[in-house]
Formats: sequence, structure tokens, C-alpha cells
Amino acid sequence: MQTQWEHRYAVRTQGMKSSAIRELLKYTSLPGIISFGGGFPAPEVFPIKQFRDACDTVLTEMGEQALQYGQTEGYYPLRELIAKNAAKYGIVVSPQNVLITSGSQQALDLFGKVFINRGDRILVESPTYLGALQAWNAYGAQYVTIPSDEEGMQTQHLEELIKTNLKFIYVLPNFQNPTGVTLSLERRKQLIEIANLNGVPIIEDDPYGQLRYEGEHLPPVVVLDDEIRSKETPIYSGNVIYTSTFSKILAPGLRLAWVVAPEDVIKKLTQAKQGTDLHTSTLNQYVAYHVANSPFMKEHIQNIRVVYRERRDTMLKALADYMPEGTSWTSPKGGLFLWVMLPEGYDTSAIFPKAIEEKVAYVPGEAFHPNGGGKNTMRLNFSACKPDVIIEGIKRLSRVLKESLAH
Amino acid sequence: MQTQWEHRYAVRTQGMKSSAIRELLKYTSLPGIISFGGGFPAPEVFPIKQFRDACDTVLTEMGEQALQYGQTEGYYPLRELIAKNAAKYGIVVSPQNVLITSGSQQALDLFGKVFINRGDRILVESPTYLGALQAWNAYGAQYVTIPSDEEGMQTQHLEELIKTNLKFIYVLPNFQNPTGVTLSLERRKQLIEIANLNGVPIIEDDPYGQLRYEGEHLPPVVVLDDEIRSKETPIYSGNVIYTSTFSKILAPGLRLAWVVAPEDVIKKLTQAKQGTDLHTSTLNQYVAYHVANSPFMKEHIQNIRVVYRERRDTMLKALADYMPEGTSWTSPKGGLFLWVMLPEGYDTSAIFPKAIEEKVAYVPGEAFHPNGGGKNTMRLNFSACKPDVIIEGIKRLSRVLKESLAH
Repeated sequence: MQTQWEHRYAVRTQGMKSSAIRELLKYTSLPGIISFGGGFPAPEVFPIKQFRDACDTVLTEMGEQALQYGQTEGYYPLRELIAKNAAKYGIVVSPQNVLITSGSQQALDLFGKVFINRGDRILVESPTYLGALQAWNAYGAQYVTIPSDEEGMQTQHLEELIKTNLKFIYVLPNFQNPTGVTLSLERRKQLIEIANLNGVPIIEDDPYGQLRYEGEHLPPVVVLDDEIRSKETPIYSGNVIYTSTFSKILAPGLRLAWVVAPEDVIKKLTQAKQGTDLHTSTLNQYVAYHVANSPFMKEHIQNIRVVYRERRDTMLKALADYMPEGTSWTSPKGGLFLWVMLPEGYDTSAIFPKAIEEKVAYVPGEAFHPNGGGKNTMRLNFSACKPDVIIEGIKRLSRVLKESLAH
Repeated sequence: MQTQWEHRYAVRTQGMKSSAIRELLKYTSLPGIISFGGGFPAPEVFPIKQFRDACDTVLTEMGEQALQYGQTEGYYPLRELIAKNAAKYGIVVSPQNVLITSGSQQALDLFGKVFINRGDRILVESPTYLGALQAWNAYGAQYVTIPSDEEGMQTQHLEELIKTNLKFIYVLPNFQNPTGVTLSLERRKQLIEIANLNGVPIIEDDPYGQLRYEGEHLPPVVVLDDEIRSKETPIYSGNVIYTSTFSKILAPGLRLAWVVAPEDVIKKLTQAKQGTDLHTSTLNQYVAYHVANSPFMKEHIQNIRVVYRERRDTMLKALADYMPEGTSWTSPKGGLFLWVMLPEGYDTSAIFPKAIEEKVAYVPGEAFHPNGGGKNTMRLNFSACKPDVIIEGIKRLSRVLKESLAH
């Protein structure tokens, strides 16, 4: 039926078409499908009892405040707690440097709203996080892509690419979504040095930093920036905006994430957030504070690491056992995803319907490449399925690929 | 300290300066201040026990789903419930016509994102809801204002103003924020007839529709639109987008609201929401569903009406008892606000600091006028304070005004 809205959509909606992934993921909820497609945490590790207790405590002791309107910047004790925890990772900031957002997707949207004019150029890894592209397409962003390998963004290309009049650089240094690779320490240093030399700021997206299953923690880019500058000034300099989330260490259903940025940027993001959703759920902030501000939290994150490490190892072994010749994959040191590469010329989008027939799902890699490419790649999630299901799923996927590669 | 972000803000942030209200409201939390400034529901009416029980039930019976990622459109049973309840008010739609948003502020933001190109003209009442202006300023909206009186928008000006190439008309027909006035039935009919004749769609914002304290419920504009068209087609025609919220009938801390629109508009809004915050908190949607889908709800809304009716009556009587000559005010039939008018030439922004000295706060009316005007007006909230506090606050306000008017 014709309505008077149809011809009234804004120009920016042209960049907003529903993603191919979203269409594909509809198949993954069909009965019997083993899905490596989503980015879901394992529900078995959700601290349900702790949430139930926290809801009870919060509503009993401070129900009137927890159900009332709150400040746009977020619940102050939660901002304090985040600042305190960030300091453990070398990010020394005050609560005034912290903004609570309604999930990290909102942080990405607010970055777009506050920084991106139509046509602005953003340097992103190729492949990069699809959610960032979705957020920024709405503001008319253009992308300059930098290739990555097993050590992350190939910083040797940076000096050339950074001359292309960039608004900012977007990087996921730890167990990147979609590839699972980690930016090496040497490259982190190169990145921040070249960025600062050329006066281009960085947005560092770190949803999985605490989910490392092997090796040593590497300093975030925001800390390296600070170390360089602390020779001049002893406080957070803020040419790197840092963002992280409770979705992977507590629960995504809360929609709680945060941004660490200089105070003037926090003020601008807060103004934008005020017009966007006024503030993030007061109740959820109170409840998350109660769960996160307890000794249980440390033990909980260690427990998640154990569970996900086993699933990663299981998937890596199954890939080694079953995948056909000519395929390769990354070996992530943490996070939720790994990346499979087929020989050049193959198209994982074309193969996808066959995978659904075999009752296994993945995300075709093409979607993560804003300027094209990646047709022969796919993203696999290893956090959502239990080990025996992972093995069965990889067996199915291998059958599909063997058949496709044989043709 | 200089950071590399400072000169990188997008053009749209120029329309995003922190509102005067927000700055003023900081004073209202000072000790001893009686604030009629905010738009807070009374925390005494929050159904805390029901929320505690619902959290317990939801987390016990379906904790894994309630803490997991959810669908962008919203929790299906909640969309069904909203469609069912809308039908009671004559809005006959399916769950596919319903989108759950993170508070009504997000609904307003999504309307801006999906419909407003820089420079687009929107017809708004003068005065109108500040949150809508905040949301749409970020998208570069321009405003055409239509004056209002005790019966709401003065539709006699509509035929002329509607010729000015409008993107849409924005109206709050029930107990409008900020004035508290209600659009009469006759004017509702004129509005929809003239709008349809000229092919201009309407956004109907109805946060307070269920909070009527006297008189008969009037049909929403969306229903009148449907009635006119149902001669041709028996289903929701959708030239009016309708939006409402749980903030005033359950609790604002949940950040839960909804949009009713044609399916193609819901699809577009959903795409925009996906890039904006992925989805609204799963936990809050489950919990709100459990509270709202119970016989308790009807009784609860009746109870809110009793409490707010008393507060409204108390404020109206106090105004009559104490306000100086030359002032007048509206008599709302529902909602949370009333509107005070001083003689021409007085400036409620200039008087505000004196009010704070006397320990009483309000919102100067100027902020609700996108194209200027309203300097001699103010908005008073009557829902947040208890009756004896309302009387004391109006006494204080009257002293301030008497002194100001005497000069």
C-alpha cells in the first residue's frame, strides 16, 4: 500500500540497506542448523544468579533511583569503576573521561554523529568490523582500507595511506572482529607514531581485550600514545579514543558499553547522546555496577577464558582434521572469531546456500570489506557452540567446501 | 589541553549545543530547591515490587535469552502486547507495525535519521517538545511554527502553513509538553483532513495519552486518519506515525518506548536502529513485558491517575491562591505539565536566578520555541512533588514573580 512516507526518506538511508549478513543470519535460526555465523557469547557463561541477586538488591535498596531518569553521561559509580578498571590496563583517566553508552554500537553511532561529515575519509583495516561500517555509512563516510595479516594492520602501508586526508583511523587491535588477529606490539608503536606525526587521531575498539587465552597482554594504543606524550605531560592526552563493552564479559542483553576520551570529546558525545536516547537504562547500569563491582568478576572472566579457550582449541583442531587442501585459517589468541581463507576465485557467498543445505552457517567475508574483496573468505564464531557441536559443524562445513572446491 | 579531535567535529554538532534547560536544571538539584523544572514521574508510583518479581521470574525462567542479543525490531511478545493494547484505543495494527525503541527520545532520533535531510522543513506547534528539537537539530531540520491556544494547534493557520514544502507535521495532541493543552476533536479532524489533502504525513507523539484526569478520551489522529480511509481500505493506512512510551506508565529508567508505523517505515527505522544501538535491552523488554502483561497494569494506571490528579489540582489551586495579577496558566486535563504566562515584556530566563535564590525552579518557556518567542512563559511540572511541597513551591514562585512584576 502506498503511504505518504515512501518518497520522503532522507538521502542517508541509501547507505542503510539491510546488510547481506542480516539476511543470511535469518537462515541460521532454522532447526538443526549449527551456526558459526553470529557473534553471540555462550549463554552458559552468563552470571544469571549474580544478575538475579543484583536486581533484587538494587530494586530493594534503591528502586526509586534505579527506575527514574538518569544522567546522560551515565551512573557515576559505574563511570568510576570503569576508570578504576581501565587504570589496571594502564589507561589512567578520571570518571569525567568516561561516557556510558547503550552498547558499543551506540558508541560507534555517536562517533559518526559527532565527527563524520558526508564524504569524510576513515582509515579502516580490511577486513574490518561490520557494525562500524553500518554506523558510519549513515553519515556518508568513505573508507580508505589498509590490508592486514597475522600481525594485524600492515603498518608499512600507513605512511602512504595516511596522506589521504583522513578524519580518523579505526582499529581493533585485540582478536579483531572478523579475523581474530592481534596487532603486534611493534605495529602498535608504528601506528601511534605515524598517526601522531601526521596529526591523525585514532579510535581504538577493544571489545575482547580481557578475553585472551594465551600469550601476554599487549598495551592498548591509547596507553602507548600516553607513554610517548607523558614525557611532556603526565596526564591522558587523548588523541586516541578508546571504547569497550560489557557485552562479552557480562551479557550483551544489557546493552552497556563505554567510551574513554578527552573531556571535551566526552562533552560533545554527551550532547549527541542526549538527543539520541537521553541516557542509557538506569536499572541496567545499577545492576551491572553491582555485578561488576564484586570479587566475583575476576573469577568470572577467568571462567569465560577457560570455556572459550577450549572452544577455540576444539575448532582449530577440527579445522586441521577436516578442512580440505588449499584452505587456511587464523589462530586467534583470544576473542570470539577466526577467519578462513579459500583459494582465490572461490566465493563464500555463492557457497552459502549449500552450507545451509548441509545445516551449517558462517558469515561470508565479503561483508567486512567496505571497498570490495574478500570473496574467498569467511568468519567463524567459536564462542557460541559447545565443543561437540563445533566438531560436527566443522565436519559439515568441510564437506560443503570439499564439494565446492572439487568443482 | 589541545587534542587532535578539537577541529574535527562534524558540521551537525553546531546544532547540538547543550540546551539552556540542561544548564539550568543543574541548579535544581541543589539542596532545598523545590523543582517544577524536570519532567520526572513521581518515584512513589513506580511498581518496584512488580519489577523485582518480574526480574526474578525472567532471570529464573529464561535468563539465557533475557541476557543474550535480541532482534532489532524488539521482543516479539512485547510487540504483540503493544499492538493488542493499541487496538483498545482504536489503533488496529499487527506486531509487524511495532518497533521497540530505547525510550521515545530514540524514536525521535530515528525519525530524524530516516526522514530529515539538512534544511528540511517540519511543522511544529509553538511551543513544542524540546526533545524533538534536540533530536532533529542534529540532522539540520528547519522549523515552521504554528501557534497554539487552549485547544492546541490553531488549525485555522494550517492551510496556509502547509504550503511551505513540509517534510512532515509533528504534533502532541494529548496534554502537550510543554503547555499541557489538548487538541480538540474538531481540530484533530481538521488537521488530518488538511494534511491528507496536501499529501503531508504526520508524526503523532503521545507519551501521556493514558494519563487523563478528567473528560473523555479523544481518538488519536492516527485513528481519525484510518477512519477516513477505511471507506476505501479496511486496514491501517499509515500516513500518521504514532509513538508512545512506558516511561510515564511504568518507569523511565527502563528506556522503553515504541513506534507504530506502516511496515515499510518500520523496516527503514529498523535498519537505522541496527546501526544506532543494534537493539534495545533484552532484559528490560522481557521484564517490562512481564509487568505490563498482567491484570495489575490497569489498576496501576488508575492509581497513577489518582496521584497525579491530586497534584494537578493542588497546583491549580495554589496558583489561583497565590499568583500575582496579570499572570495566567493552562488547566491541563492530563499529563505532567502546565504552562504559565506572565504579561508581555517579562523574561522568565532573567527571573530564573531570583527563583533559584528563593529555592524554586521552573523551565523558561523560550527553550520550547524553535524560532524564538515565549520569553514571558514558563513550564511547571506537577507530577514530581508531593502536594504540600507543591503548595510551598508555588508560594515561593509567587513571591519571586510579585517582586519581578512590581519592578
